[in-house]
Amino acid sequence: MELNIGMIGYSFMGKAHSNGFRQLPAFFPELDVKPVLKVICGRDRDAVQDAAQAYGWEACETDWEKVVARDDIDVIDICTPGNLHLPMALAALKAGKHVICEKPLANTLEEARELLAAAANTSKKTMVAFNYRRVPAVALARQLITEGRIGEIYHWRAVYLQDWIIDPDFPLVWRLEKDKAGSGPHGDLNAHIIDLALHLVGDIDSVVGADTTFIKERPMLEAVDAGLGAKGGKTMGRVTVDDATLFLARFANGALGSFEATRFAAGRRNHNRFEINGSKGSLAFNLEKMNELQFYSRDDEDHIQGFREIIVGEGNQPFMSAWWPPGHIIGWEHTFTHEFRDFFEAIAKDEAFSPDFVEGTKVQAVLEAVVDSAKSKAWMDVPRV
Amino acid sequence: MELNIGMIGYSFMGKAHSNGFRQLPAFFPELDVKPVLKVICGRDRDAVQDAAQAYGWEACETDWEKVVARDDIDVIDICTPGNLHLPMALAALKAGKHVICEKPLANTLEEARELLAAAANTSKKTMVAFNYRRVPAVALARQLITEGRIGEIYHWRAVYLQDWIIDPDFPLVWRLEKDKAGSGPHGDLNAHIIDLALHLVGDIDSVVGADTTFIKERPMLEAVDAGLGAKGGKTMGRVTVDDATLFLARFANGALGSFEATRFAAGRRNHNRFEINGSKGSLAFNLEKMNELQFYSRDDEDHIQGFREIIVGEGNQPFMSAWWPPGHIIGWEHTFTHEFRDFFEAIAKDEAFSPDFVEGTKVQAVLEAVVDSAKSKAWMDVPRV
Amino acid sequence: MELNIGMIGYSFMGKAHSNGFRQLPAFFPELDVKPVLKVICGRDRDAVQDAAQAYGWEACETDWEKVVARDDIDVIDICTPGNLHLPMALAALKAGKHVICEKPLANTLEEARELLAAAANTSKKTMVAFNYRRVPAVALARQLITEGRIGEIYHWRAVYLQDWIIDPDFPLVWRLEKDKAGSGPHGDLNAHIIDLALHLVGDIDSVVGADTTFIKERPMLEAVDAGLGAKGGKTMGRVTVDDATLFLARFANGALGSFEATRFAAGRRNHNRFEINGSKGSLAFNLEKMNELQFYSRDDEDHIQGFREIIVGEGNQPFMSAWWPPGHIIGWEHTFTHEFRDFFEAIAKDEAFSPDFVEGTKVQAVLEAVVDSAKSKAWMDVPRV
Amino acid sequence: MELNIGMIGYSFMGKAHSNGFRQLPAFFPELDVKPVLKVICGRDRDAVQDAAQAYGWEACETDWEKVVARDDIDVIDICTPGNLHLPMALAALKAGKHVICEKPLANTLEEARELLAAAANTSKKTMVAFNYRRVPAVALARQLITEGRIGEIYHWRAVYLQDWIIDPDFPLVWRLEKDKAGSGPHGDLNAHIIDLALHLVGDIDSVVGADTTFIKERPMLEAVDAGLGAKGGKTMGRVTVDDATLFLARFANGALGSFEATRFAAGRRNHNRFEINGSKGSLAFNLEKMNELQFYSRDDEDHIQGFREIIVGEGNQPFMSAWWPPGHIIGWEHTFTHEFRDFFEAIAKDEAFSPDFVEGTKVQAVLEAVVDSAKSKAWMDVPRV
Repeated sequence: MELNIGMIGYSFMGKAHSNGFRQLPAFFPELDVKPVLKVICGRDRDAVQDAAQAYGWEACETDWEKVVARDDIDVIDICTPGNLHLPMALAALKAGKHVICEKPLANTLEEARELLAAAANTSKKTMVAFNYRRVPAVALARQLITEGRIGEIYHWRAVYLQDWIIDPDFPLVWRLEKDKAGSGPHGDLNAHIIDLALHLVGDIDSVVGADTTFIKERPMLEAVDAGLGAKGGKTMGRVTVDDATLFLARFANGALGSFEATRFAAGRRNHNRFEINGSKGSLAFNLEKMNELQFYSRDDEDHIQGFREIIVGEGNQPFMSAWWPPGHIIGWEHTFTHEFRDFFEAIAKDEAFSPDFVEGTKVQAVLEAVVDSAKSKAWMDVPRV
Repeated sequence: MELNIGMIGYSFMGKAHSNGFRQLPAFFPELDVKPVLKVICGRDRDAVQDAAQAYGWEACETDWEKVVARDDIDVIDICTPGNLHLPMALAALKAGKHVICEKPLANTLEEARELLAAAANTSKKTMVAFNYRRVPAVALARQLITEGRIGEIYHWRAVYLQDWIIDPDFPLVWRLEKDKAGSGPHGDLNAHIIDLALHLVGDIDSVVGADTTFIKERPMLEAVDAGLGAKGGKTMGRVTVDDATLFLARFANGALGSFEATRFAAGRRNHNRFEINGSKGSLAFNLEKMNELQFYSRDDEDHIQGFREIIVGEGNQPFMSAWWPPGHIIGWEHTFTHEFRDFFEAIAKDEAFSPDFVEGTKVQAVLEAVVDSAKSKAWMDVPRV
Repeated sequence: MELNIGMIGYSFMGKAHSNGFRQLPAFFPELDVKPVLKVICGRDRDAVQDAAQAYGWEACETDWEKVVARDDIDVIDICTPGNLHLPMALAALKAGKHVICEKPLANTLEEARELLAAAANTSKKTMVAFNYRRVPAVALARQLITEGRIGEIYHWRAVYLQDWIIDPDFPLVWRLEKDKAGSGPHGDLNAHIIDLALHLVGDIDSVVGADTTFIKERPMLEAVDAGLGAKGGKTMGRVTVDDATLFLARFANGALGSFEATRFAAGRRNHNRFEINGSKGSLAFNLEKMNELQFYSRDDEDHIQGFREIIVGEGNQPFMSAWWPPGHIIGWEHTFTHEFRDFFEAIAKDEAFSPDFVEGTKVQAVLEAVVDSAKSKAWMDVPRV
Repeated sequence: MELNIGMIGYSFMGKAHSNGFRQLPAFFPELDVKPVLKVICGRDRDAVQDAAQAYGWEACETDWEKVVARDDIDVIDICTPGNLHLPMALAALKAGKHVICEKPLANTLEEARELLAAAANTSKKTMVAFNYRRVPAVALARQLITEGRIGEIYHWRAVYLQDWIIDPDFPLVWRLEKDKAGSGPHGDLNAHIIDLALHLVGDIDSVVGADTTFIKERPMLEAVDAGLGAKGGKTMGRVTVDDATLFLARFANGALGSFEATRFAAGRRNHNRFEINGSKGSLAFNLEKMNELQFYSRDDEDHIQGFREIIVGEGNQPFMSAWWPPGHIIGWEHTFTHEFRDFFEAIAKDEAFSPDFVEGTKVQAVLEAVVDSAKSKAWMDVPRV
């Protein structure tokens, strides 16, 4: 079975998604779904042409509405800033496409609910690209929880730390503009660890948060190169998003949680770390060492208890039979290969896929409750989805 | 110069303090203060006699008021549950003694303020035994901050995780009774990391917190042996303290902080960990690996930046010239030797000592604001001290 | 520029090489060489057809001599057991092809010398696939050495530990047969760390070694599946290679080295670890954590010295500008992408490539001196190449 | 029971031993042996007087023969350079004393055999101070081996790395003079890991080694202060010991071993690390993190196998019930407390103690075979003891 893909956006996420599509048939040949890289779309014609060639797309386009309108496209993949998710995903759903949408699903809960309603009216599949669920070590963590190995969960403790804007001279890129990005590390990074918390621990009842913007003005953007390279000019502009957002949470099952996202943690480049403590054991993970899972079991004999460092690479661990022999580690980009694998299988077999727009909306509800709480300086209930 | 010590309490802290006093002259001979272990006091005559013999005390006593009343005692060291700190420390100050008090200083802010007032009326020195300031790695962290190596501080992130009561059959020891302990891990563990935060980052303006008690009833205590060994009976009793308390904080200098104390983190025996992120670098520490300090510097050349694992054991690092050659690590108990060293030097030279009852009261103010916040479900300002 | 590839062998290494070829244009578009996956060759027609389809080859073949004979092939890539390297590489060179050969170059020094002579008689490029030179962290280690950051080298200390045959029931696969594999972990694993030693430290003058075979008989192979899965029968056969080989070395520059390769280190799946100590600093690396390099510098100020954990992922570190933002780690397979990138650039620009057959022969000389030493029970000089 | 101690030597080891004696009664009160610090002996009267006072000795002496001659002394503790072990230990045994001797037992195998013969002719107990056997994590490793948890042993891999003389200006202290020290890191550091190997793995049959002296001349010593501080003058002198010694070994049980000792491993202050691989699991230890033991078990279920980091601090782990609650780590110096505890118990109960002069002589036999091998450039059998 072939699935024709139309992708909107071509920079960091566009590169990562393209790679995921391309790698899929070679490593998961048993899946029997072959994504066809039909068309890639972006506003800058030269740049999108270069991307099409480098990443292996058949064609390129500068008008996203034309992509959505194409009859031969099965899946629309949205890799654009958050303010564009709503119109693009709505149009794609209306056009009868399966939709992959980068996280967070939207810039507001209201937008997310609108998307959710649209998705409910179609038989097509939706996916929000919370790729970290499908890091093999995270999938193994989920499996161990399901197996009952850590018992009843008492604590969730997660941080997502980066430092790429710590230099005050780093310019005002779109991720620092509220009208495009919706928020700063809150929507960008907390969204990831909220999704993991919902996936691994369960629903969140209420939250209380705090945010701040350490550097309130930055040089306006003059030029940008591939990746995150960016150069500022002499004029200054206002940063309209948070530089850091922290919050506490009470889960429906009684567990307590803490969350923190920042772009000001010097030396932490992509430090997405969580720890879960339960009545029978604990789990710990760090994305910078994503092939490793720490596991502590109170079932071990007393004198040999300790955190195990499981190097997740065995054929009997999630996703790993597809890759290399044990101890030959895999990279960050394969999280995309894994999520596309599962999404396409769901399409092929017409089965449920998770995380879909329902779960994307649940994340949005938590994000928004935190923002409200930071304003009201009090605990807020998380709206039901 | 000799200083005669009278110590009240003889179990875990009594053993640790006795060792600190005994070790002092051998490792800091240049100090020229010799603590004399005059009298140890406890309610159980047999147990306190055994302790006196094992730990090297000249005499033992069962009535603490008699100890305080002795003319030949220079320093009263209070190692009892929190509800006894107020009467004992008040009496000791009134009797003209220098006072060492275990942490937290009191069970309420009101009690702490009463002690503070009493201390202000005497020329004697006071100390609250926040011993972790004098872990060499923590003292080095403070030095690096003072040297400007991490710049302006943006983030404080600390947890103090234990798991010694995770078994629901662990009995109702005094630390789980509010009238004796004041609180659970909040006063016991958060007190430590609040003190470190005030010491390393600065004053806290406001807080918001959450607490919970996972196991609400436990077997009544039947017997207790040395250390933390304890045995429960068949009757059940109510746990009246928190099992876990988390909170967020805003520091006066604009930094954001998170704190968590729990006794339900499976596998974390004594996991007092903090990380500080500043504009120029970061520091990280974990008490279970207390001879190590992690340090990241943005001043390093770009392609060789990374967290350094400094094994704190060099003669030019705090306190370490007293001990062994580099790489020969020291143990937890020497934090007491170090704090007594500095306290006795302050007495000998009539200089200020920190942390004294002022700083102990500041910690109490933060503790209490968190408790209030957990009740009101809103941010609370920390009362001024 | 296009380069047409013919690859012989299609299992573990065939899968890895195919991936490296396929990924090259997407991540190194500036290279302007596009490898074309023309033909893949193997003896089992069904299996090679499946591989051709999964890995993206245009055609497949069961007779390697036909592949070598094709006029349209520019590069022959040899991924077969060691006993086949000599005939295949000789034929390929004779046919005027560039040659990529998996390591070790041959099963004996004599064979390697024959290949070296043939390579010397052609203008075509040769490569021995010692891919670990091009792990970014290893390339950074080399750069730091070249920059003089660790000074004069005193010590090289390397182990390559695996455990995939530790179960005595694991069957007699070809890697345990001397006539095919040449040797056990010695040629398979020591070859890698010898190449790294020659690359990072310099020539080796003399060696002394020891080897052993812990499990002398194993079940004959009945079936084999993808990867390393293999199943034995009831008949037993003799293991004719080493299970472990260790040796000491004296380098030409006065440094001392130790090397160890084993397949009996329980829990060490792919533990290729080295440490280098020099007069000014040290470096340490472990393939299982291949995105990290440990670096200690005596140039750091006294009180902040420690091993830095450099997460190698910055755009200014070797190869990493091609991939993802900092902290987004890469996988084991990209070592192949990197070596093909550099090899094809050498072809395109007609420049020298390293490691070529000269360096492959140097590794062989060390391997053979160790084997001789294990027999003679005395130090042996390494033959000159 | 009281045991009167006479100690010869008062610097690094003198300080450590004194502390071990002093701490014993407080932490092991159930032992019912109280060491009495009767007399400490050294050639420099002022220095030994200071030491006596600081470390708590009743008297001091400058003539060691007078100490040995005292009727009231039960135990002679020898903490002097290796060349003095023979005359002192012989005299002490002849005088009917129990003898504690620092490692290595002697500077030659011949001397060790002479001491062994003398010890065989007395009913008194002997001990060689290989204190690392009684690091709790090492004792736990031994226990796990005895429990059969790692099965049949295949590999021993140990290094003892230091860097305190890496600066070429560091002067010619006694440890660099063969007539006093016997050898360099070989006798000083390899002795430790040889003892651990014999204790944990078993007897060694044959060895092959290599040594070198990187810095052949150093400034003559002008002054020395406490610890390892030392200052050189302008005159140069020859270094007469090794700077590094490596060797391979074959154990009687078929295991292969590697050993390395150096004082030129930049950044490794006291890095005594070993790993043991067996048919059922593995163990790893590093003295710089001496409260931790790494343990891998093939008995764990397949998908959760990994090296456990056991923080050795539980009451059910060796020696640890004496100290603090779990997670409160202990320091290097307590290895001495532990060995004295066991030695005095052996005296009190008239039981065997290990390691005694027999085992000290076995270590000497291995040391000497390595030196012989380095000269002969061939494998040497280890002489039987």
